Amino acid sequence: MIPMTSPAADSHLKEALLSSEELFKGKFLHAKRDTIRLPDGHSATREYVVHPGAVVVIPLLDDGRVVLERQFRYPVDRVIVEFPAGKLDAGEDPLVCGQRELLEETGYTAREWAHAGATHLAVAYSTEIIHIYFARGLSLGERQLDHGEFLDVFTATPQELIGWCRDGTVTDAKTLTCALWLQNVLSGAWALDWQAAASQGGAG
Amino acid sequence: MIPMTSPAADSHLKEALLSSEELFKGKFLHAKRDTIRLPDGHSATREYVVHPGAVVVIPLLDDGRVVLERQFRYPVDRVIVEFPAGKLDAGEDPLVCGQRELLEETGYTAREWAHAGATHLAVAYSTEIIHIYFARGLSLGERQLDHGEFLDVFTATPQELIGWCRDGTVTDAKTLTCALWLQNVLSGAWALDWQAAASQGGAG
Repeated sequence: MIPMTSPAADSHLKEALLSSEELFKGKFLHAKRDTIRLPDGHSATREYVVHPGAVVVIPLLDDGRVVLERQFRYPVDRVIVEFPAGKLDAGEDPLVCGQRELLEETGYTAREWAHAGATHLAVAYSTEIIHIYFARGLSLGERQLDHGEFLDVFTATPQELIGWCRDGTVTDAKTLTCALWLQNVLSGAWALDWQAAASQGGAG
Repeated sequence: MIPMTSPAADSHLKEALLSSEELFKGKFLHAKRDTIRLPDGHSATREYVVHPGAVVVIPLLDDGRVVLERQFRYPVDRVIVEFPAGKLDAGEDPLVCGQRELLEETGYTAREWAHAGATHLAVAYSTEIIHIYFARGLSLGERQLDHGEFLDVFTATPQELIGWCRDGTVTDAKTLTCALWLQNVLSGAWALDWQAAASQGGAG
């Protein structure tokens, strides 16, 4: 069986919207509860977080190291090792978001960018998609953390990062997904389409 | 800088609980809003989903293929290719959960299991941790889908799966994380500690 078939062929799996209501809208979290029709005609409810989408950046230094962050993540009550990432502003292009977040959080700007792929973070209960970019030709300026944002920036070799993915030091799903990309790009198995950062404007 | 340092050394990153309130408790989603103290002494709020944790299983067939699922995931409005997975029941051992979910969703039981690692799915707004297991020595019985659960089971070679991770057919973060594990286990770079499924009781 091929994994992707035509929409019509998936009618035995698909769920259809019947009605939608706000579950809540907090300062950060926004959730909905939809009533849906199951493939067998019965109805059920789906509760999920509405998310604007996000971007994660794999910054490659000229010496082969990567730029990472250590950030306390309250929901999991620990300091998490992760690649720079952030949410899309309303209507923001993902590449522009990646350039903005890399600069704000780490102080780096990049001469070249490559779009890699995308990942759905929590398909059971969130609309979130994270766009994955590589960045190279990095130059370091001054970072511009948001008010109330606290994180350490550090560098590591790809080999160190892959080792941390194995030994449990890295548990963040987006960063583990980036490690899959990094490993296959560095081995030459997966090629990237690098583009000059023309769209970065004054920051490039 | 090493990625993990002592708790005391992370005081410049850590956030401390001041007070907690229920944001909402739906049939599926449960969320809290905590007021916290930032490292600089200011206060802020954190809204997050409280999740019981989950398990994902990488089932290896004797012919080298892996068992996958196609399931419509309402929040992202598409059929997602993913490894078998499910939420922990209250107090459930992750291995027992993996054995239960593999049987329920695919009909397979496994002679041997290996714990791989764990991933935090959405560190910004969910407590969810997913425990990753490999299973081998598979034998096929009858699947026992929950009421209202609809999914296709299919098999693929690891090479096909890795190709789908690159071309965007696979976007599910837990499955991309599993692909990192699969690639490194099959290459021999990462070793697993296989255990007989003694604890599976009647199903083993």
